[in-house]
Amino acid sequence: MQAVWLEETSDSLMVTNLSKPGRGAGEALVRVDLAGICNTDLELIRGYSPFAGILGHEFVGTVEDCDGPLLGKRVVGEINIVCGHCAHCLGGRSTHCENRAVVGIRERPGVFAEYVVLPVSNLHRIPDELPDEVAVFVEPLAAALQIQEQVEIHESDRVAIVGDGKLGNLIAQTLDLTGCRLTVIGRHEEKLKPLRERGVSTTTDPGSISNVDVVVECTGNAQGFATALNLVRPRGTLVMKSTYRGRLEFDAAAIVVNEIIVVGSRCGPFPPAIDLLKSGKIDVGQLVDRTYPMGEALDALTYAAQPGVMKVLLKPAEGRGF
Amino acid sequence: MQAVWLEETSDSLMVTNLSKPGRGAGEALVRVDLAGICNTDLELIRGYSPFAGILGHEFVGTVEDCDGPLLGKRVVGEINIVCGHCAHCLGGRSTHCENRAVVGIRERPGVFAEYVVLPVSNLHRIPDELPDEVAVFVEPLAAALQIQEQVEIHESDRVAIVGDGKLGNLIAQTLDLTGCRLTVIGRHEEKLKPLRERGVSTTTDPGSISNVDVVVECTGNAQGFATALNLVRPRGTLVMKSTYRGRLEFDAAAIVVNEIIVVGSRCGPFPPAIDLLKSGKIDVGQLVDRTYPMGEALDALTYAAQPGVMKVLLKPAEGRGF
Repeated sequence: MQAVWLEETSDSLMVTNLSKPGRGAGEALVRVDLAGICNTDLELIRGYSPFAGILGHEFVGTVEDCDGPLLGKRVVGEINIVCGHCAHCLGGRSTHCENRAVVGIRERPGVFAEYVVLPVSNLHRIPDELPDEVAVFVEPLAAALQIQEQVEIHESDRVAIVGDGKLGNLIAQTLDLTGCRLTVIGRHEEKLKPLRERGVSTTTDPGSISNVDVVVECTGNAQGFATALNLVRPRGTLVMKSTYRGRLEFDAAAIVVNEIIVVGSRCGPFPPAIDLLKSGKIDVGQLVDRTYPMGEALDALTYAAQPGVMKVLLKPAEGRGF
Repeated sequence: MQAVWLEETSDSLMVTNLSKPGRGAGEALVRVDLAGICNTDLELIRGYSPFAGILGHEFVGTVEDCDGPLLGKRVVGEINIVCGHCAHCLGGRSTHCENRAVVGIRERPGVFAEYVVLPVSNLHRIPDELPDEVAVFVEPLAAALQIQEQVEIHESDRVAIVGDGKLGNLIAQTLDLTGCRLTVIGRHEEKLKPLRERGVSTTTDPGSISNVDVVVECTGNAQGFATALNLVRPRGTLVMKSTYRGRLEFDAAAIVVNEIIVVGSRCGPFPPAIDLLKSGKIDVGQLVDRTYPMGEALDALTYAAQPGVMKVLLKPAEGRGF
């Protein structure tokens, strides 16, 4: 099968042919129908964290082989493959399993391929009425929803999002549903426009707001973090919701003097993300930038890495050999 | 009166003679009986934040002039002088008052002097049985107790403190009272010893523990922060409880991937600190390193800045002209 293989750095990124994987007990063989490129994929290519293998973790697919009722069904998959018996798994935080592998990120083949094998317990069925182009957003939407698992957002809260990229947009749409007083801060008028058309307040001038109760940093860079720290009120909350490569320098005194709460945020819950997409309350159509065939994945990744590009999708070839 | 004057940098630090301050309406003239040197004083001398004026904010004194029942009484004083009508004051976080002055830190004369003027509402009466050498610890003990205002500590929690200085010691003693599973990590056997003698677990090897629920960083340096971040479990809490000068570099990805909660912590509540000192449950005797006369304050500050030195106290001259 065709797959996008990374050998730790961009020098050895390639589309290659690999044999179709076999599944073990409790696992499902899933045909990938559509996959999405995430900033984490781009950061892995840039060397964010050592990984050798098939890239990719956002996908929707169809179960070709497994035991149980999911056979033949359309599914999405949680990306952490966990042991179930370490302190974190037993402590109710299995996404932090000490022995975890992470699809396309750590010690587990990813989804930029024609097939992927996942534990059946990682899979969630997708309703028939949800097109692939929508279902492929379940994983990043779940990540956006994780913020609300960690931080209580009230209607009266002033909330700011720093960053108008694809994750910032999804977070904006989810937080807007809480009824909070939301402002999205970005650099690109054209990326803020669809949010504004949905009634979300946006600005390109971070100086125009201050003293927000909660700020979500989605840029992944030091400047965005500094902006966020500047916006949040004393005893307010700063959510770090991005992939940060390397070290970040920040004003530690500001965090102490203003008693800021900084919350790191990663993977989120799939079922509410699926429900939300089913409800039609989240518009992911505005997020899709381009769709490439899997064979042109290197072009797709190069394109996705350009500033201002939104979600780029990868589609395995039609009429594959099965 | 004799006072320790800082003109923004150590070059212009001096003990000088100033006129005795006058009090305004709602204020008290307090004779300083004993003052304590805090790391923040040392950082101000090093240029942590621009300040010109009398240094110092930890003290115990006697009210010489005021309206009301505190006249003639022994007192300690809260260090934030607040407006009472800004959003933060009205929002229940008056220590973050937008218009605040801070005694000896920001736009308000400090306590390294024979007299200080404070709003009566900032003062707390000290029980007669509490010696000056104990009462002078109310302000830093309140700061230590602020951690428990911000983070719920359970008996089952594994808690680590990084730093064995005077603030680390006070925090250790307060957290030990919660019954949590506490370990203090320090570099100095002689500073850890008094804690160990009280039954607190200590170590000089941060590698000997891991996966703690809550870690308190009291070193104020990047290495201490890195150690703390390394110790805390996924979704655990890292409290920043120190004066950080300048910028700090940290592993942002670790905070996101492990979904760490970082909490900045500053001033705390005085009444429980006074009660705790009165109860005898906190031993501050082990913390006093040396006491200097106010006239030798420059020597005292130089001594206090040496690594490993614990609390240095300043005593205005006996038999002053009143």
